Amino acid sequence: MALAMNMNWREDQEVIELIKRIKEPFKMTNRAFKAEDTMVTVDGRSIGNGHFGVIAGPCSVESRSQIVEVAKAIDGFGASFLRGGAFKPRTSPYDFQGLKGEGLTLLKAAKKATGLPIVTEVMAVQTLKDHLDEIDIIQIGARNMQNYDLLKAVGRTNKPVLLKRGMSATIEEFLMAAEYILSEGNDQVILCERGIRTFEKYTRNTLDLSAIPVIKRYSHLPIIIDPSHATGDAKYVESMALAAVAAGADGLMIEVHNNPEHALSDGKQSLTPKAFGEMMVKVEQIVKLMGKQLG
Amino acid sequence: MALAMNMNWREDQEVIELIKRIKEPFKMTNRAFKAEDTMVTVDGRSIGNGHFGVIAGPCSVESRSQIVEVAKAIDGFGASFLRGGAFKPRTSPYDFQGLKGEGLTLLKAAKKATGLPIVTEVMAVQTLKDHLDEIDIIQIGARNMQNYDLLKAVGRTNKPVLLKRGMSATIEEFLMAAEYILSEGNDQVILCERGIRTFEKYTRNTLDLSAIPVIKRYSHLPIIIDPSHATGDAKYVESMALAAVAAGADGLMIEVHNNPEHALSDGKQSLTPKAFGEMMVKVEQIVKLMGKQLG
Amino acid sequence: MALAMNMNWREDQEVIELIKRIKEPFKMTNRAFKAEDTMVTVDGRSIGNGHFGVIAGPCSVESRSQIVEVAKAIDGFGASFLRGGAFKPRTSPYDFQGLKGEGLTLLKAAKKATGLPIVTEVMAVQTLKDHLDEIDIIQIGARNMQNYDLLKAVGRTNKPVLLKRGMSATIEEFLMAAEYILSEGNDQVILCERGIRTFEKYTRNTLDLSAIPVIKRYSHLPIIIDPSHATGDAKYVESMALAAVAAGADGLMIEVHNNPEHALSDGKQSLTPKAFGEMMVKVEQIVKLMGKQLG
Amino acid sequence: MALAMNMNWREDQEVIELIKRIKEPFKMTNRAFKAEDTMVTVDGRSIGNGHFGVIAGPCSVESRSQIVEVAKAIDGFGASFLRGGAFKPRTSPYDFQGLKGEGLTLLKAAKKATGLPIVTEVMAVQTLKDHLDEIDIIQIGARNMQNYDLLKAVGRTNKPVLLKRGMSATIEEFLMAAEYILSEGNDQVILCERGIRTFEKYTRNTLDLSAIPVIKRYSHLPIIIDPSHATGDAKYVESMALAAVAAGADGLMIEVHNNPEHALSDGKQSLTPKAFGEMMVKVEQIVKLMGKQLG
Repeated sequence: MALAMNMNWREDQEVIELIKRIKEPFKMTNRAFKAEDTMVTVDGRSIGNGHFGVIAGPCSVESRSQIVEVAKAIDGFGASFLRGGAFKPRTSPYDFQGLKGEGLTLLKAAKKATGLPIVTEVMAVQTLKDHLDEIDIIQIGARNMQNYDLLKAVGRTNKPVLLKRGMSATIEEFLMAAEYILSEGNDQVILCERGIRTFEKYTRNTLDLSAIPVIKRYSHLPIIIDPSHATGDAKYVESMALAAVAAGADGLMIEVHNNPEHALSDGKQSLTPKAFGEMMVKVEQIVKLMGKQLG
Repeated sequence: MALAMNMNWREDQEVIELIKRIKEPFKMTNRAFKAEDTMVTVDGRSIGNGHFGVIAGPCSVESRSQIVEVAKAIDGFGASFLRGGAFKPRTSPYDFQGLKGEGLTLLKAAKKATGLPIVTEVMAVQTLKDHLDEIDIIQIGARNMQNYDLLKAVGRTNKPVLLKRGMSATIEEFLMAAEYILSEGNDQVILCERGIRTFEKYTRNTLDLSAIPVIKRYSHLPIIIDPSHATGDAKYVESMALAAVAAGADGLMIEVHNNPEHALSDGKQSLTPKAFGEMMVKVEQIVKLMGKQLG
Repeated sequence: MALAMNMNWREDQEVIELIKRIKEPFKMTNRAFKAEDTMVTVDGRSIGNGHFGVIAGPCSVESRSQIVEVAKAIDGFGASFLRGGAFKPRTSPYDFQGLKGEGLTLLKAAKKATGLPIVTEVMAVQTLKDHLDEIDIIQIGARNMQNYDLLKAVGRTNKPVLLKRGMSATIEEFLMAAEYILSEGNDQVILCERGIRTFEKYTRNTLDLSAIPVIKRYSHLPIIIDPSHATGDAKYVESMALAAVAAGADGLMIEVHNNPEHALSDGKQSLTPKAFGEMMVKVEQIVKLMGKQLG
Repeated sequence: MALAMNMNWREDQEVIELIKRIKEPFKMTNRAFKAEDTMVTVDGRSIGNGHFGVIAGPCSVESRSQIVEVAKAIDGFGASFLRGGAFKPRTSPYDFQGLKGEGLTLLKAAKKATGLPIVTEVMAVQTLKDHLDEIDIIQIGARNMQNYDLLKAVGRTNKPVLLKRGMSATIEEFLMAAEYILSEGNDQVILCERGIRTFEKYTRNTLDLSAIPVIKRYSHLPIIIDPSHATGDAKYVESMALAAVAAGADGLMIEVHNNPEHALSDGKQSLTPKAFGEMMVKVEQIVKLMGKQLG
């Protein structure tokens, strides 16, 4: 059963009946609601249902030359989407908060130079109103996974949403957060596991790759992995990226910076374009072994 | 040094210099910034600086008779503030989401009947704009502890803010979230520990009472405890409430329902008015032993 | 029903029938098996059933003057038992492992000087065989909470056992570990909560005081609290000790060192005798308020 | 530098000097102590240094036909070692504790039928004394990771040791536990990650695959993965096994039972021989891609 994007589901009796019969708390995200894998496509580039999409780019957009240079590099190595933070959630109000609107302008320049669609985080409903047209995939960060006001707002847009798992969200809560978006009429949701908070100190977070087969079992939504934020160290990114592909993920989100040592945020976990390229050669081999195709 | 409520701190050179000299990431919340305990006062009822304030009431406002009855009961037993959820954050979009504006109207009726100021959660910036006048203390829930858009918005109001610790927020992140509010000019912040997420299954969360002496050491802000949400079971509430007083907390937040078995949310953890009254007798004894006074 | 200490329970049909009817996994530790609180008594000093026992002393026994001096000080301030590590479990094989047999000799000297019974950790079955007569209460450390070989061995002795909760043991597993001891015929078990491992970095572990009412509900065994190991910082010990009393604990285990800055292990979390004395004045007040008596 | 198996390292001045210069707490397990990968070999079957070893078999040895049948099946599909529990650590003293000595006899029969070396858990020093000759690789379970008495005892044997990570052990503590074994003279240690305890409820534990690159960075010891105990569900085992290979693991430990539904322990997480065979085809493909060879 195909899920109509803009259906008014609350009035659709057949859908309501189906939802009632589903036992798990998640309804429209449930594989019992929609059996086939959901595929999210932007400008001919896809994630899910056999398509393995790689989103890459810097943590923060810092300058025109930085973002354009990185975009060209990752495009050449097989990435399908460009990520870059313009509105940055920071633990401290005194830290760099992103270039905001100007950052989006620079991302558009990079998109123009490469054709790569833009993935960027939005933290406020007002930002969504002001900048929706400039964004290809709206990212909801881990801190806002249960910001229901924001989830409902993106649920009423017609843009794909990349939803990151909360720092200590259970998989059930993660799928329920997606449910908030789908229940408003937007089923173009990509889930992203980015590490959960544990006692371990040698990695920033603990990447929960078992979330991949669990989510594949219960939901039709694509699930991608962010090994950069999860491990917090560029030395561990390739290993976890290859593991994610082998575990059955639908894509990756990788931090790449042309000058990691001088990044305004999260430099330690960023790959250089060269290291990203070397990783992509191996990623592609396992993607093929898994019977999927890049992008 | 008294912190002027509406000072334009960014232009106050003396404050900026002080902040620069503080080594911990939290600045205006820091005891090195303001040595004496902050006291939050509404209608002559106080929390902090020797005043022990008890906030009580139902998880959700359900009806006029429910909220007025509970308010009268807790008022008689020594509570200083009435809590009641009108806008409810729920893991599922299909669960009861609160009576919203109508719930606020009922809370005001209970306030009129008892004089108890109202504490209620706000989840969206728009709600704040629409209902600020009706709320005495704005509660920011655990899920929104790092919703910076909302934190900044309440930081620009002149109402006290009750900030709950995120499910897996470190104490440092908790104080940094308060910092977002203070840095916008509002220093009337009450911190609330409500249990952190651990592996333990016999309690809903693990109440971290050691947060009390840690926060007292680093910050001047008052810290209160919510044993109801933390334990998830009415049987454990009194024990943890008394422990909180003895540990040095500045107040309590307790769920009380006139008919726990039929509550629309969180009935299992709600005290009956009678059990609340019995608990308050013991709370008061330890409050006195600690050299503090109720309310 | 009194539980006969040396009964051959496996052949006691009545006991077997009772155990079969208990639904929780813990059987002989269960309050449904024995309704009244268990009291553990050594040389007229008790823990449990209205008796609040304080165990104090240094992490490691270091010298005769150290242990005798500390023993005299804590005895004067109302402690009932002397703790001191002779066999030390250390994360590194290269760290100080305790004075072993010589440490026990020094503990006996301190006992002779004060009358305080000795609580000390045993890590190996062979140590138990070699030194059982020299120990009054056998401590099983957190790392060995599920060392079943050792649990069964202490279960076959006639000495009281102080069982510490494992670093990340659930309360259910904690009670099941006690069950191993009781099922071998020794019901003189004191449970000790000493903090669980969480993500929080401002305290060494997170003290789970809610374990007190939960254990009181399910089991008849006494439960005491170790705020020194839990918080890892002397500044937080008094606050958590008072909270433990108010929460309903049956006792405390407190690290006291006559020269914390030069302790061979865990100096940062040790109280000076003076600070211990000041704490005990407040502990006693809350003990009385709870309707209990010291020792 | 090759580490001599039986060297008296405490008297070897060169080694002591090297250890002193290593900054991390782990010394002999450290890659700075021994640069090349350690390879553990039994009867011509290897784990580590390019050799990928698969250990498979049932959780508990139950009967001769069971263990011989499973051994033949896994041998045919490319496993190198047979696992089977004879001495079972169980949370409850009333649960099946294994066939003990008889279980070892059955394991030897299965070894005779297939040539597969035996991996089995030992929980007590006495068991080690009684049965050392019958065991090819001694398994130390998660509950005993910090049972230093047992670690030292296996450190004084000449048998390889499979050391499982404790339920909530940090990687640093895990390597320090291995250090206890190496410091006694036995450097034939295989590390095994088997899931850490977190809040997630959809899997039994959270498999920490990032431990692989972290351990590879700091230590020369081989690291293998146990996805069966980690996930607790046969449905997720293949996905996590393939991920482990791609992440750079040196081997796998997989539960296989000829009749999972009737297993005496852990049936839910056991693969059938058929499912194991299908998994091994994919495992071998990724093993080759990683430039390694099976066994």
